[in-house]
Amino acid sequence: MPLNRLEAFSDGVFAIVITVLVFNLQIPTPADESARALVDALLDQWPVYLGYALSFVLIGSTWVNHHQMLRYIVRADHTLLMLNVLLMMWTAVIPFTTALMAEFLRIPGQQNIGAAVFGGSYAVGGVFYNLLWWYAVWARHTDPALLPAQLKRITLRYFFGPTSYFLGAVLALFSVVLGLLVYVLPTLLYVLPDWSARQGEVRNGAD
Amino acid sequence: MPLNRLEAFSDGVFAIVITVLVFNLQIPTPADESARALVDALLDQWPVYLGYALSFVLIGSTWVNHHQMLRYIVRADHTLLMLNVLLMMWTAVIPFTTALMAEFLRIPGQQNIGAAVFGGSYAVGGVFYNLLWWYAVWARHTDPALLPAQLKRITLRYFFGPTSYFLGAVLALFSVVLGLLVYVLPTLLYVLPDWSARQGEVRNGAD
Amino acid sequence: MPLNRLEAFSDGVFAIVITVLVFNLQIPTPADESARALVDALLDQWPVYLGYALSFVLIGSTWVNHHQMLRYIVRADHTLLMLNVLLMMWTAVIPFTTALMAEFLRIPGQQNIGAAVFGGSYAVGGVFYNLLWWYAVWARHTDPALLPAQLKRITLRYFFGPTSYFLGAVLALFSVVLGLLVYVLPTLLYVLPDWSARQGEVRNGAD
Amino acid sequence: MPLNRLEAFSDGVFAIVITVLVFNLQIPTPADESARALVDALLDQWPVYLGYALSFVLIGSTWVNHHQMLRYIVRADHTLLMLNVLLMMWTAVIPFTTALMAEFLRIPGQQNIGAAVFGGSYAVGGVFYNLLWWYAVWARHTDPALLPAQLKRITLRYFFGPTSYFLGAVLALFSVVLGLLVYVLPTLLYVLPDWSARQGEVRNGAD
Repeated sequence: MPLNRLEAFSDGVFAIVITVLVFNLQIPTPADESARALVDALLDQWPVYLGYALSFVLIGSTWVNHHQMLRYIVRADHTLLMLNVLLMMWTAVIPFTTALMAEFLRIPGQQNIGAAVFGGSYAVGGVFYNLLWWYAVWARHTDPALLPAQLKRITLRYFFGPTSYFLGAVLALFSVVLGLLVYVLPTLLYVLPDWSARQGEVRNGAD
Repeated sequence: MPLNRLEAFSDGVFAIVITVLVFNLQIPTPADESARALVDALLDQWPVYLGYALSFVLIGSTWVNHHQMLRYIVRADHTLLMLNVLLMMWTAVIPFTTALMAEFLRIPGQQNIGAAVFGGSYAVGGVFYNLLWWYAVWARHTDPALLPAQLKRITLRYFFGPTSYFLGAVLALFSVVLGLLVYVLPTLLYVLPDWSARQGEVRNGAD
Repeated sequence: MPLNRLEAFSDGVFAIVITVLVFNLQIPTPADESARALVDALLDQWPVYLGYALSFVLIGSTWVNHHQMLRYIVRADHTLLMLNVLLMMWTAVIPFTTALMAEFLRIPGQQNIGAAVFGGSYAVGGVFYNLLWWYAVWARHTDPALLPAQLKRITLRYFFGPTSYFLGAVLALFSVVLGLLVYVLPTLLYVLPDWSARQGEVRNGAD
Repeated sequence: MPLNRLEAFSDGVFAIVITVLVFNLQIPTPADESARALVDALLDQWPVYLGYALSFVLIGSTWVNHHQMLRYIVRADHTLLMLNVLLMMWTAVIPFTTALMAEFLRIPGQQNIGAAVFGGSYAVGGVFYNLLWWYAVWARHTDPALLPAQLKRITLRYFFGPTSYFLGAVLALFSVVLGLLVYVLPTLLYVLPDWSARQGEVRNGAD
């Protein structure tokens, strides 16, 4: 199985997962037939819109990083493929955990559980992201041009994602606001470019 | 990240968004079990069919223009990727705003809000479309073969889209018919070919 | 816009449309908690399963023929792209018309309308399929290696599809069984290989 | 029709089918507004989570094997394309049969039917998987470099999948636990790499 097949399949899953997030946006049922009631009903859906935006940027960043990681890898075998399937399994669950968090965000007694499940499931996904990378390093499927110091730096950087999400999920059990803040942080860090690998990134897409 | 990956991902999102529009079409519940009642129930759904057709052509045109724009760009970096993710975020919202507009189009007090939200969200998407282009021009990621006059012309043309949609959304608050007319106009203009770049467009797809 | 982009986009839409057909299959609600009741409830859904299988093969055949047609075409322009968007618009509607037909197939007074709408919408899709081809022939975007006699034969063959579907839709208004039979016929004919172009079809997909 | 088109279409269907599995996960409705009630409601959904994980790994494995099989095949014709469409038809049905099994798994009188339908439909899909392979061997569309002994080994290995699923479906009628165990077995076997073809698998995905 060539690596670009793995990439195409993952791209497909990412594109679908990111798009089906929109199904969490539901037509509101206004109190009456006035314009005011419709505006109120729409504004009342803010946790759903927040969840949509947060998860969209999150999945988008994960997609960018997934491609970044695949560029460091030069070979695929069955173990790597199945680890990727498991990573995709946790990625595809995000629309559900997003809806869950948005649904229970305004119920005081249940908002902590909702936010913790969201972060927790994302953290588990991050674990498989790291397992995939660790396996690739261990099985020497990574680009031989990468220096040991570079590999170490990348490994450390990847490790940061799920760790902070686990932390965020635990914090969310006590404070939803704190948990959400910690969720947003690794996203920003993931979005930041990996300068060491920047040169190879700039390519012309024209065939 | 090579540009063709960005293209493939965007293509996937466009294809999914345009296809999930069909979920807005719901099985009608006729008043009784006669053929007449079913025909009436189907015809009664006209705003839904109108929204489906309008949004399908709209997203189709945006997809065509997105590819056109990417052909002027020769390099991608992280900022450009994330701007594209944000553009996709507003594209993926169209099935929701379409359903919203169709749902409230026949309630006199709420049709203006419904139509304005549809146009407004599309206008915001257009802003990110322009931001993506402005960034590409500013960061010199555009094709060096493009003359400054050509760049200026393209920039002006892209600027027209969201501007007219914002105008349409404001107009829709006062007159739904007027707003809808303004929505259709930029679609037609976007569909029009960009003659300056026409020569390169005609290629054989056979490998 | 190179032709292979048009192909990739259409492939995406076809793949999604054919897969979302499964959403028409709903979990049944058995009369009681016995095994017998579940089996009965499942068997009772036969029109839904029939619609799923029929539409899956139908869309699969359309996809095969769409690729076949694109192989005769060597150039794309904006008109061709927009005609393809309109063709996709009618393809994407099939899961809806399939659900509609399945829903009303067992209500004697409404089964004719349901079956006619299914065939009618597919016939309109076939009209755009032919318009796309006619435009490509008229604008000389077809492969110059094709002889006039071959072009004529292909044109005639494509014309057969929507014609028989229109006929089937009209027949369905009087007899559902007759209409369904006519729907299945062009599918079988579409599935049949186009022998004149067979040689070029056999290629190794390995890169 | 080149083989890579068939691959791209199948990839699309696999990616969508595997992703729409998430729609089986529904927001729970807790008994009251306490954290405990939400946790209970979530834990109560275990058959749905189990079904999600099982089907995700199942479809993922099928995708891996489908690619493996296509690498042994060097040519496609219409019969092969239509057999693949029929294979996809049974693949796309998995989210439905998964939901069905999860729904009825806790109703003692109906859990056997639910589990048998799940395995049965997967077994029928396996039949088409084998038909596709048998046809390719019969029509000499397989790689001429494959020795008769290798072809035989592959054929035998593919045959094992649906056979064990049929067995599992029959067993599930008597014992759900036994049936589920038999379902998991071929998945593990399918996941195992085909050592004879391993050398060609290791390729760099970088263009």
